[in-house]
Amino acid sequence: MLTRDTLVRRDQEDPLAGFRDRFVLPEGLIYLDGNSLGAMPRDTPARVRDAVERQWAEDLIGGWNKHGWVDAPARVGDKIGRLVGAGAGQVVAADSTSVNLFKMLSAALDLRPDRKVILSDRGNFPTDLYMAQGLAALRAAGHELRLVEEHEVEAAIGPDVAVVMVTQVGYRTGRKHDMAAISRIAHAAGALTLWDLAHSAGAFPVHLDRDGADFAVGCGYKYLNGGPGAPAFLYVAKRHHDRVRPPLSGWFGHEAPFAFDLDYRPAGGIARNLCGTPQVLGLAALEAGIDLMLEADLEIVKGKSLDLTDAFADLVEQEMPGVFELVSPPEGAHRGSQVCLGHKEGYAIVQALIADRVVPDFRAPNVLRFGFAPLYIRHIDVWDAVARLKRIVTDRTWDREIYRRRAAVT
Amino acid sequence: MLTRDTLVRRDQEDPLAGFRDRFVLPEGLIYLDGNSLGAMPRDTPARVRDAVERQWAEDLIGGWNKHGWVDAPARVGDKIGRLVGAGAGQVVAADSTSVNLFKMLSAALDLRPDRKVILSDRGNFPTDLYMAQGLAALRAAGHELRLVEEHEVEAAIGPDVAVVMVTQVGYRTGRKHDMAAISRIAHAAGALTLWDLAHSAGAFPVHLDRDGADFAVGCGYKYLNGGPGAPAFLYVAKRHHDRVRPPLSGWFGHEAPFAFDLDYRPAGGIARNLCGTPQVLGLAALEAGIDLMLEADLEIVKGKSLDLTDAFADLVEQEMPGVFELVSPPEGAHRGSQVCLGHKEGYAIVQALIADRVVPDFRAPNVLRFGFAPLYIRHIDVWDAVARLKRIVTDRTWDREIYRRRAAVT
Repeated sequence: MLTRDTLVRRDQEDPLAGFRDRFVLPEGLIYLDGNSLGAMPRDTPARVRDAVERQWAEDLIGGWNKHGWVDAPARVGDKIGRLVGAGAGQVVAADSTSVNLFKMLSAALDLRPDRKVILSDRGNFPTDLYMAQGLAALRAAGHELRLVEEHEVEAAIGPDVAVVMVTQVGYRTGRKHDMAAISRIAHAAGALTLWDLAHSAGAFPVHLDRDGADFAVGCGYKYLNGGPGAPAFLYVAKRHHDRVRPPLSGWFGHEAPFAFDLDYRPAGGIARNLCGTPQVLGLAALEAGIDLMLEADLEIVKGKSLDLTDAFADLVEQEMPGVFELVSPPEGAHRGSQVCLGHKEGYAIVQALIADRVVPDFRAPNVLRFGFAPLYIRHIDVWDAVARLKRIVTDRTWDREIYRRRAAVT
Repeated sequence: MLTRDTLVRRDQEDPLAGFRDRFVLPEGLIYLDGNSLGAMPRDTPARVRDAVERQWAEDLIGGWNKHGWVDAPARVGDKIGRLVGAGAGQVVAADSTSVNLFKMLSAALDLRPDRKVILSDRGNFPTDLYMAQGLAALRAAGHELRLVEEHEVEAAIGPDVAVVMVTQVGYRTGRKHDMAAISRIAHAAGALTLWDLAHSAGAFPVHLDRDGADFAVGCGYKYLNGGPGAPAFLYVAKRHHDRVRPPLSGWFGHEAPFAFDLDYRPAGGIARNLCGTPQVLGLAALEAGIDLMLEADLEIVKGKSLDLTDAFADLVEQEMPGVFELVSPPEGAHRGSQVCLGHKEGYAIVQALIADRVVPDFRAPNVLRFGFAPLYIRHIDVWDAVARLKRIVTDRTWDREIYRRRAAVT
């Protein structure tokens, strides 16, 4: 039996407790959607102001060299690398997750010219699937995007698979793929792996190098707290660097961007995977979020994430037995930093929660998704969120007609 | 004979004179590189602060609807449309110029499946050429990027040309292509046109609709003053909207992004050309620059641009006859808002000018590029810049050895 006192005590003993004050959070709000858009670090406004009002306004074009704008994708990328287990020189921050996925998938397919299957799962985030569909149509070389259920990925890796393309933690279920196992199976079958770390980076330690990943992409605005629409990142394992043929071969990936040659020659190393001019202002905000995350020990972050998500799942069942279906895996080791609940009135319940100052999000058709960002979510927030959820569900305080009507127009 | 008094008088009579105070410019600096990175509008810091510290920090995920982040690419796009002669619903602001060029070129090639030539010129900005090379390699359908000299484009449009892809104003020469003429010739030959407006948008009126352009892309950080690495934009003429097949088919271009379907279905209208999550912070800064530009009459901007560039070219010849080669076309009607001078010591002279608080830029091998942003450059700046240039050249005050050494390490 989990009690409020237990959670109060956990907060008192939490080695990450001090991080909460490093964010600006609206008073009284329990924000359980940091896996959709992370909260704003307290340092971010000053960093962005500096980039805008000093670096840009005062130094103008000189900022490219004087303030390291040219190097920002690699510098920020290396910092992200430390969060996802990638040695230096293998990550750059640039573009969007979608665009980076396109680059990495194309590069992977080039390395397996005789294979035509892109293997993914139905739990993958749709834009990853859409980008793969677009790339396959563009290449017009007979590639097939083969989708299986999340738990079937390992078994579906066969000799026709060029690349296994999965999001490590499913956006809808929170289910976590085993990176080491899938890499091992893929490589044994002659396939490559491409990981989307959108719900991983900053939520727990990722070990791209150790676990044998070939390619990866990820998102800057979730657990990395880089701000809405922050630049994304990409990773290429060093062993592939010289064989990558960038499909989006822009000037920032050229060997000598400022020589203004007429012919594209890819830069050495990870840099060839850059494309257009870096998003300097977005990178400034992203770097503030990453610098803060780098102060935390990700093993401790992971431990707290497990405590928060276990407590939430347990409390929901303890306080409201049988009301919700647990959509996420029950074992913490098999899920990311989120708990997903199924309920046929899911949309209306989410709206009622938001009205009661608890913010999860809703994923059609019936999933309530609760994300727990360990740097700023307290253990007591779990109790309070469940208490408000219980009041809504047991008293049926939500006005079904109002929320149904809202659902109809969304 | 142009005198200082003439230029002082022009400033007194300049209907755009008031715009200079709407920018923050370093005291005493003559900034003639706004065609590389525009100056910071005075309103921008407050707009960015609002996006970061109020919209993001206070409203978190709710910002997507409450603050119009979802609609920002189309809203900002429509505003850009007013600057480039595009009716509403044909422009979106997103991604980088390079990425947008890739999308538009791919869409154009799809519409001319039986033709294999992408026609461009050697004066085009290299990233455009690189992206075309990458796309051709990716499609592996035998497309050829055919390059001619800038003045040969019209004559080179033949029945094998799928798309004429040019930058309206050449980055190195400032030479301006005739959009109406090229469109007419291209269409008569059954080809399409793709325009890069990097050095056009915000510098003079562009008439995409009127002049029959098919596709266009452009840059947010030059004359639009959107800040370093600002989001770029793209245009598709309405007649092509439903036939565009987006090669970068991300979720923001989906018919229903938040339905999370497994299959891509392109959105109607221009929206299908979006890809990943919008760069909210970058768009906030860009919108500030565009809102300011929208206050100006672009015909007047163009008139001032002609006065500034004519005066600069004339003064250089008047004060230093025969010293520089005029690389730009002599007639204002045939060039953008820049004047390019050739000199074998070009790099050293640019360095000496920068040391003397005049900022042009240098383009290898020997071009000094002077850009004139009519909203914040005064007529008297032309006089002062030429005076400093004359002192440097006639007194040979620049230390050749120092600047040569710098050139060697750049």
